[in-house]
Amino acid sequence: MISAGIVVEYNPFHNGHLHHLNETKKRTDADVVIAVMSGNFLQRGEPAIVSKFARTKMALQAGCDIVVELPYAFAVQQAEIFADGAVRILASLGCRYLCFGSESGDINAFLDTFHWLERQKGRFDEILKEKMRLGFSYPKAAALAYSEMEGDGALLDLSQPNNILGYQYVKAIKDRQLDIIPLTIPRIKAGYHDPEFSSDTIASATSIRKAIFSEKGDLEPLKRYMPESSFEELLRFKREYGAWQNWENYWPFLKYRIIQSSPGELREIYDMEEGIEYRVREAAFRADSFQSFMEKLKTKRYTWTRLQRLSTHILMNAKKEEMKTYCQKPEYARLLGFSKRGRQYLNRMKEELAIPLIAKASSRDGGAFELDKRAGYIYSFGFPPSVRQRVLEEEYKRPPVMAE
Amino acid sequence: MISAGIVVEYNPFHNGHLHHLNETKKRTDADVVIAVMSGNFLQRGEPAIVSKFARTKMALQAGCDIVVELPYAFAVQQAEIFADGAVRILASLGCRYLCFGSESGDINAFLDTFHWLERQKGRFDEILKEKMRLGFSYPKAAALAYSEMEGDGALLDLSQPNNILGYQYVKAIKDRQLDIIPLTIPRIKAGYHDPEFSSDTIASATSIRKAIFSEKGDLEPLKRYMPESSFEELLRFKREYGAWQNWENYWPFLKYRIIQSSPGELREIYDMEEGIEYRVREAAFRADSFQSFMEKLKTKRYTWTRLQRLSTHILMNAKKEEMKTYCQKPEYARLLGFSKRGRQYLNRMKEELAIPLIAKASSRDGGAFELDKRAGYIYSFGFPPSVRQRVLEEEYKRPPVMAE
Repeated sequence: MISAGIVVEYNPFHNGHLHHLNETKKRTDADVVIAVMSGNFLQRGEPAIVSKFARTKMALQAGCDIVVELPYAFAVQQAEIFADGAVRILASLGCRYLCFGSESGDINAFLDTFHWLERQKGRFDEILKEKMRLGFSYPKAAALAYSEMEGDGALLDLSQPNNILGYQYVKAIKDRQLDIIPLTIPRIKAGYHDPEFSSDTIASATSIRKAIFSEKGDLEPLKRYMPESSFEELLRFKREYGAWQNWENYWPFLKYRIIQSSPGELREIYDMEEGIEYRVREAAFRADSFQSFMEKLKTKRYTWTRLQRLSTHILMNAKKEEMKTYCQKPEYARLLGFSKRGRQYLNRMKEELAIPLIAKASSRDGGAFELDKRAGYIYSFGFPPSVRQRVLEEEYKRPPVMAE
Repeated sequence: MISAGIVVEYNPFHNGHLHHLNETKKRTDADVVIAVMSGNFLQRGEPAIVSKFARTKMALQAGCDIVVELPYAFAVQQAEIFADGAVRILASLGCRYLCFGSESGDINAFLDTFHWLERQKGRFDEILKEKMRLGFSYPKAAALAYSEMEGDGALLDLSQPNNILGYQYVKAIKDRQLDIIPLTIPRIKAGYHDPEFSSDTIASATSIRKAIFSEKGDLEPLKRYMPESSFEELLRFKREYGAWQNWENYWPFLKYRIIQSSPGELREIYDMEEGIEYRVREAAFRADSFQSFMEKLKTKRYTWTRLQRLSTHILMNAKKEEMKTYCQKPEYARLLGFSKRGRQYLNRMKEELAIPLIAKASSRDGGAFELDKRAGYIYSFGFPPSVRQRVLEEEYKRPPVMAE
């Protein structure tokens, strides 16, 4: 059986994701599609709007065959480490293909850029360092360095977020010499012509979340942008658990944690750098919402995303030591759900899997997985008090979701 | 000017306290009464029902002249350390008398017991150790040891909580050779005859809190047990801040903190002993209220009070290292409020005060006082989200209360 891998967050699942899933099947002719998905905290340093189990359901109902969790130590990370972890897990599960969406849509642009940058690495790093010395954040500095070097023909627009991620997937495959064929499809946006996925039915996950958390909160208009099953799951989740999650739900706990900690303790948190712990304490003391905390914290040097990731690590008590250790190499994959065909695939592959699959949180202790479990437990604190305990225990006991 | 000291918590202020205050004045003929009062977390390891500022108001309105805060490092402690800190602060402020309430009511019983136990220390410690080896908690073991030695005439019933505290006050005065005269008055209870303070108008703070948090929550019947000004302050506090505090309000934060911590981090918390950190984690994981957490945690070896204090230290992130350092010696007193006469006293005594008085939290950094500030900040998390920021900043900026 042939499998194709995809890297996803599904926050929440929408028609753009469905297009990506269908195109992956079409272009690879794979028997199964395996999604490696961030858990309850995402790459941009945010809690997921619905739990990983709900997002797994959405994925399976839309035609995914296997969903595994990207461990926290890779998920809440900058693009390079995120991509490295995701691609290596897919390789460990035997994926022949990796198919990702990008603004470019041309896989040769990625491959050529990779080789070209390999040759130019010295010069690139030099310009990058110079830009960061001037106070630019890492992604901004990298984009500037890259665009200064673009003289010999623009290969890939690396100021685009999905091109950056795609580049990192390709780089991980090449650097690790993985036996995976990378493919890319263009992301659909307004103006992209596709009979099935016109701009009328495509909206970004960001704009969908924005609509969900808007004052009006009328969800009916969202129906056109999501598969019906995902839309229903979104509603069911709120009905059953009383809340969709966003950072504000966790703000009291984040603030409490910061107020309670000494600067020395904050310095142990992953991604806490250069005396920013004092700024964090000062901002937390004065802010009465996550939004105002972030506004007080923001400087030119740090991107919003990076500060959100830092906030997640504080909320999680994720230490430098553990994060640096556990992001070296994925050592397991937690199985979140599978279809009938997914199960067949896993049965056949059993002997060849390069890492163990974990079916239940309660069945493994220690190491990097403690971080994943903790993330699941901490996620429960965003819910109304009456359902927190249920969410917490679900994380611990729940078996993988099986597609109906 | 002559001053008399008292050690109080006023949680909340009631007629028994008023009696103690009036008797102190009567028996010492002092010009001012100085109360050293636990801050927002109390000796039994609980949040105070109303803030230290509100309790200070109650005290001043009832006739207290000066209220200073007992630092956290002494307040949330077993009787011996609590008493040591309180008595030394009163001595530093120049108190000639210390007047405490006790079940005994006879100061000679305290003094004789102190001398008798000094002579018998070896034997007492031996029996105490034996009882603790059998699994009894410290106070229970001490009471048992004491009663086994009572053969030569019962001097003082040391199974009574206020006798225990009183004994520790006397012991601190003697051990530290402080120039303070100890006095005691009998606590009023049902059956005690006093025209002004009959059993009809006396109720314990515990039973008053119980009535406040009861289902019915009808406060009118409490009026008879409290001075009117205290009753009004109690109501005003709820109106203004939206809540009276109890442990359940802090439970989500305590649980979050425990879930987020490794066993190694929990071991650093003051009072965490003998592998109990695993029990704490297990209980927190399964409990959905503070009450159920405590019930899961309770064993014969640990008293309820001790486990509540441990919980407070976890909530506060109060470490072994800091607590052990800062409970050696009180190095300041935070001034919470004063009357006109109290101000006169402080002005005259200015040169003779053995420790600095702190008027505002913002005016001092570092050392033991960081713990006190943190306690004030953490106290804010028990309030409804909309007033938390106000409570937090009040702790930082508020000057002492002045009696009208």
